[in-house]
Amino acid sequence: MSVISKTKSPRIRLVIAYDGAPFAGWQSQAGGDAVQDAIEKVLALITKDPIRLHGAGRTDSGVHALGQVAHFDAPAESRMRPADWQRALNGNLPSSIRILRAARAGNDFHARFSAKGKVYRYDLWTADVLPPHLSQRAWHMPRPLDAAALQAALQLFVGSHDFHAFTANRGTPPGDTVREIQKIRVTQSGPSLRLTFEGEGFLYKMVRMLTGAGIRVAQGRADIATLRELLANPRAGRWTNVAPADGLYLVRVRY
Amino acid sequence: MSVISKTKSPRIRLVIAYDGAPFAGWQSQAGGDAVQDAIEKVLALITKDPIRLHGAGRTDSGVHALGQVAHFDAPAESRMRPADWQRALNGNLPSSIRILRAARAGNDFHARFSAKGKVYRYDLWTADVLPPHLSQRAWHMPRPLDAAALQAALQLFVGSHDFHAFTANRGTPPGDTVREIQKIRVTQSGPSLRLTFEGEGFLYKMVRMLTGAGIRVAQGRADIATLRELLANPRAGRWTNVAPADGLYLVRVRY
Repeated sequence: MSVISKTKSPRIRLVIAYDGAPFAGWQSQAGGDAVQDAIEKVLALITKDPIRLHGAGRTDSGVHALGQVAHFDAPAESRMRPADWQRALNGNLPSSIRILRAARAGNDFHARFSAKGKVYRYDLWTADVLPPHLSQRAWHMPRPLDAAALQAALQLFVGSHDFHAFTANRGTPPGDTVREIQKIRVTQSGPSLRLTFEGEGFLYKMVRMLTGAGIRVAQGRADIATLRELLANPRAGRWTNVAPADGLYLVRVRY
Repeated sequence: MSVISKTKSPRIRLVIAYDGAPFAGWQSQAGGDAVQDAIEKVLALITKDPIRLHGAGRTDSGVHALGQVAHFDAPAESRMRPADWQRALNGNLPSSIRILRAARAGNDFHARFSAKGKVYRYDLWTADVLPPHLSQRAWHMPRPLDAAALQAALQLFVGSHDFHAFTANRGTPPGDTVREIQKIRVTQSGPSLRLTFEGEGFLYKMVRMLTGAGIRVAQGRADIATLRELLANPRAGRWTNVAPADGLYLVRVRY
């Protein structure tokens, strides 16, 4: 049951899009150049008080978001409505970060812990020259790539698996690296290839490692048996080919 | 007849795309931050000699190109093939400028004087929030716009007219401001509106002024009779509403 308190601090849920290129990822950095820092800075400007923003998940430096979700607790005395927060934030944020929606949430809603699933997409450009408007927004791979072979290779990852060999997260306790992927789709339009991953959650750098793995197989530079072996014996080795951040987009968080 | 000389300097024709946001337009500037400057700098780096690049036309600061055309004369002793020029240029240019094609041209080809027509497009975003990935790439107009009314208003400009009232070019001799527009199309996809202009040539700021005029009429903030009057008596007044550079793209040059 969702509880909207009338006396406690009102919890506000944001849907956020950002161009990842100019930022050091989602999560707060010492240098202050993360997306979270930029938004918290504006929140503090509005409320004159530090406010902590909780995101659904981290995105790495350079990774984009079309629908990141985050929440914060507004000061109890605040009379701002969600639309006021959206307007005040967009009015003060750089144009590379936009609040797409703001809504009141129950105080039991948590952007990270309430999340049921995520959708990521990975964009590739497979012709000789990367159009300037796709610079830092797609992985440039100046050779044709067999979309059907890529789609076939990636199906190996669909289902519930221990992805320990496909994350840069070291030291995770055994069992904590099991995730379920519901769907992986490859669509092609001319030299543009788009990979879509739907799952309950993804480990650190997992989408970029699965993308790298699928592409290596599609190129004939890796054997599908190697990937199968890494899924079956997730602590016997580790996949090392990580696709660059440029092409990755957090599309949506499901609740 | 196209003459490809074997003894004279080989003329090279380039098709160029650029993200206009970081540049002070196409044409060379004192500060050196024009697209032409960036390319000429790389040409000089390759040949160790200054080389003059001739573009099909200027684009203003912030205006984008998907298919600008330019030519230059390579040193007579150069043994570089067009593909070599393309590779060397793309290898040294910022990723915001790309040479899409390079080809040998006859010595009678001139990027500007041989041009028979141009296609421009103007992108608008008509919803509340401009997605960050469209920042500096579309005109943000946070209100719905009637695409049919816009299409109807813009049809007034199709045909051969004296566009003196719709250019920022002052002091042009009478008669020199006659241009023929073959086609203007408006397409809509959700909040995204795209205007396409095809014509033999366009005067300084003309596309942005026609766009501004069409939109004012579609919004009910200007009367179509005013535009008709400015076409009929091109020196009786001047249209002043200029759409911003962000949404404008030089799509193609026809020869």
